[in-house]
Amino acid sequence: MTQSGSLLQPKRALISVSDKSGIVEFAKALTDRGIDIISTGGTFKLLQENAIAVTEVSSITEFPEMMDGRVKTLHPKIHGGILGRRGIDDDVMQQHQIDAIDMVVVNLYPFAATIADENCSLANAIENIDIGGPTMVRSAAKNHKDVAIVVDSSKYSQLIEELDQHQGIQASTRFELARAAFEHTAQYDGMIANYLGTVPSDTAAESTPERTDFPTTFNSQFLLKDIMRYGENPHQRAAFYVEPGEKEAGISTITTLQGKALSYNNIADTDAALECVKCFDEPACVIVKHANPCGVATAATLKEAYQRAYSVDTTSAFGGIIAFNRELDKAAAEAIIGNQFVEVIIAPSVSAEAAACVAQKPNIRLLACGQWQQAKPALDFKKVNGGLLVQDRDLGSINAADLKVVSQVQPSEQQIKDLLFAWNVAKFVKSNAIVYAKDGLSTGIGAGQMSRVYSAIIANIKAKDQGIEIAGSAMASEAFLPFRDSLDQAAEMGVSAVIQPGGSMRDDEVIAAANEHGIAMVFTGMRHFRH
Amino acid sequence: MTQSGSLLQPKRALISVSDKSGIVEFAKALTDRGIDIISTGGTFKLLQENAIAVTEVSSITEFPEMMDGRVKTLHPKIHGGILGRRGIDDDVMQQHQIDAIDMVVVNLYPFAATIADENCSLANAIENIDIGGPTMVRSAAKNHKDVAIVVDSSKYSQLIEELDQHQGIQASTRFELARAAFEHTAQYDGMIANYLGTVPSDTAAESTPERTDFPTTFNSQFLLKDIMRYGENPHQRAAFYVEPGEKEAGISTITTLQGKALSYNNIADTDAALECVKCFDEPACVIVKHANPCGVATAATLKEAYQRAYSVDTTSAFGGIIAFNRELDKAAAEAIIGNQFVEVIIAPSVSAEAAACVAQKPNIRLLACGQWQQAKPALDFKKVNGGLLVQDRDLGSINAADLKVVSQVQPSEQQIKDLLFAWNVAKFVKSNAIVYAKDGLSTGIGAGQMSRVYSAIIANIKAKDQGIEIAGSAMASEAFLPFRDSLDQAAEMGVSAVIQPGGSMRDDEVIAAANEHGIAMVFTGMRHFRH
Repeated sequence: MTQSGSLLQPKRALISVSDKSGIVEFAKALTDRGIDIISTGGTFKLLQENAIAVTEVSSITEFPEMMDGRVKTLHPKIHGGILGRRGIDDDVMQQHQIDAIDMVVVNLYPFAATIADENCSLANAIENIDIGGPTMVRSAAKNHKDVAIVVDSSKYSQLIEELDQHQGIQASTRFELARAAFEHTAQYDGMIANYLGTVPSDTAAESTPERTDFPTTFNSQFLLKDIMRYGENPHQRAAFYVEPGEKEAGISTITTLQGKALSYNNIADTDAALECVKCFDEPACVIVKHANPCGVATAATLKEAYQRAYSVDTTSAFGGIIAFNRELDKAAAEAIIGNQFVEVIIAPSVSAEAAACVAQKPNIRLLACGQWQQAKPALDFKKVNGGLLVQDRDLGSINAADLKVVSQVQPSEQQIKDLLFAWNVAKFVKSNAIVYAKDGLSTGIGAGQMSRVYSAIIANIKAKDQGIEIAGSAMASEAFLPFRDSLDQAAEMGVSAVIQPGGSMRDDEVIAAANEHGIAMVFTGMRHFRH
Repeated sequence: MTQSGSLLQPKRALISVSDKSGIVEFAKALTDRGIDIISTGGTFKLLQENAIAVTEVSSITEFPEMMDGRVKTLHPKIHGGILGRRGIDDDVMQQHQIDAIDMVVVNLYPFAATIADENCSLANAIENIDIGGPTMVRSAAKNHKDVAIVVDSSKYSQLIEELDQHQGIQASTRFELARAAFEHTAQYDGMIANYLGTVPSDTAAESTPERTDFPTTFNSQFLLKDIMRYGENPHQRAAFYVEPGEKEAGISTITTLQGKALSYNNIADTDAALECVKCFDEPACVIVKHANPCGVATAATLKEAYQRAYSVDTTSAFGGIIAFNRELDKAAAEAIIGNQFVEVIIAPSVSAEAAACVAQKPNIRLLACGQWQQAKPALDFKKVNGGLLVQDRDLGSINAADLKVVSQVQPSEQQIKDLLFAWNVAKFVKSNAIVYAKDGLSTGIGAGQMSRVYSAIIANIKAKDQGIEIAGSAMASEAFLPFRDSLDQAAEMGVSAVIQPGGSMRDDEVIAAANEHGIAMVFTGMRHFRH
């Protein structure tokens, strides 16, 4: 029949698309190459209007489109034509006057767009669930040995080129198309399941029922970006996937300007560095090591911001990840290159001069992620044995107006700046986190301790070892200070202002301690555990 | 037609199941209630053999089952019967002699079982992709207003009960069934996409092509276990999902014997505690706080193990998570209850006496997870902005035979025990991790520092504050010691043996330092970063 060797020479294509971009041109190109076209509904009309010879599906099935389009293509003449195994089912196809369909061009109206409308009724959502479309997609994908299934308009030009170059569609292309087809239907039904899963069954009779925050099954699809050499450790295999669709500028939108492939740990650390540096309006630099910021600074220039961030923990910065919130300029690039071993440098963009400078060290991974806008709500995961914790991404943020001064001493304007700076850093330090900061510089970072006082202790020791003066710094605790001991400790270090969520049973004692020591203390009412 | 109010009184059911458990009894119960049955293939034969009145689908479609079953039910007489909107499409149904189908009982052969066979050819896998089944499932689910779709044999008895009790199937039940149906097809196509995504297109022509480790799209489905009050922080919404199918005993298999609902952080910490305590053969106790073990011990009894684990960090243990690797007995329970505030106690099982003891403090979450067997390979996730890092769960483990002694001093048998103990703890401490241990007790745990020496420093300070003697302990570093400074530091603390992966460029210097200090040092060749 239509197949020659492993090359498919299509004679007949069924076209029924929701995404109509490029479809007229594609259909025209197919008919120009002697391929007959059958179609339904809106697509049929569009092709006909554009003077493309097209046969309606109903004239093949001899069944009308019925039930407002619910049943159009669900017919043996269509599915026999798609699913028939050429060379095996030829007789039965002939016997039942089933003509082979060699190409199926179908895509599905994104269910997500339907339900994105807050006022979308349940009935409307359900009416928008396509039955015939996914069936054709799946039939054609199953029979990709003999059929090309096209679910993505971006493939049209490639297919026409292939038809012209090879006089047919190659087996490897048909397999890729089939894979994309099942990825399309998996994603489609995943969306539907996620939607229906948020409708409590006892309210399903209502027109627009109250939906729950989390569906009864959580279905997700991520797109492979890279298979890595290994994961967090060499004995773990790993891959990096990205979300479908438009993404906030960040680790998932990077362009690698130079350097070795990113490792699993590079990606995790770069994400942490980048999300932290996004918190600052002034030119800022964040250096991350082992998932924690080890130096954070703002300044008039990126160069100065880098030099300040580096200065507070020169040991940890070795082999670290350095993130900026402005286009990387030559001065900052030079300052890094001449100063330290670095794994990754990332910024929204990189000037040509800066890129040329980093090129001296070709192993450094130099990344540009694009300019970010406002952070997008999204979900965060934590995998546990046999399960998955799903939560909102932590997008909580505060500004000066949110602060509640609880001490007798009022913080000065500069102290408020320091407090907010320390708070923004503490949000990205593993809990328990204690961060000291002064004049747009992290003067001490105490990370990941099981007891809060030890986070302060380790921050102090590191500052002392580095010759950094804590006195006069603001101090942030990402969760409430449970006892007055942290305040006593802070006073001993010369801390002048404290920011913390508040909410301990012993807030009174802690406030009393602040007053005793003449420390200004503000409550945020918001916690930032990060484990 | 068949519907009365919101109650569906089915007259005609289409049954075609891969999972045949209970189907004969269910079909019998349906016919007993006056419901006609239509069926195909193996299900038709089975019902007929069991003397159940059943009509073959082909006698309705007047089309034979063709192409080895590829096209059976894809016909307007079937799908019109399922999709027809009662009260709206009645005329068109009558006109085309389409009889309503009110119940669809269809489930899909698990594609996972097909491809579980390593020798499964690609052609065989593809032949096992069901087209007609998912279409019926989706049609019926879409039209759940008028149709009951049953994809799960565990629902049969509930449906018969409902038919008897209410003389029909309720709207809320039909909605739940429809939701389950789309969850079923989403999961099914997700499996197919995951499978096809591991076959490189240029090898797809081979009979059993080499597959890649990670698919081109990563599709997953998790089942909701619990929507929580909030996530890691109060401003984050959160839910706990579990994997479908059989799970390794752990946080996802828990039974809550008493106590408040588990929080997001409880679940994460309990998982960490439990996975750590699984590493030990002798009776063991692990206390976790903020995702890190703060005390770990083995002993002759759980009580003693608990008391020892508690003793090394009494501050952090407050409000911690306590995990055991044996049935919780009364003595251990009493020791905890009389001693400290605790959030969660978990063990494979809990004796009645222990449960009675814990009942004195009704807020404590007391959990039993069942007895675990060997750890199952699985995937681990790390969510980043716009993307997902996927890797093998870290199941790397070593035993005495794997150790390579690199120092002149050979470790004694006791030292080897201590080294392996420290190593097993270090695997569960956030990187950089330094763990000291002696006689089945963690004498010092240094967690989560950006520079390795500070992990040692914090471990030492905590030990000293707690009055614990580090001297004579073994020391584990979960990643290689990059410089000799860690060895010098260890010697100063009186550490007698060191375990680490090895592999630093400066291993020679580090080994020389061990020899200089008379420390026994072993290399594991395996790293356990955990961030």
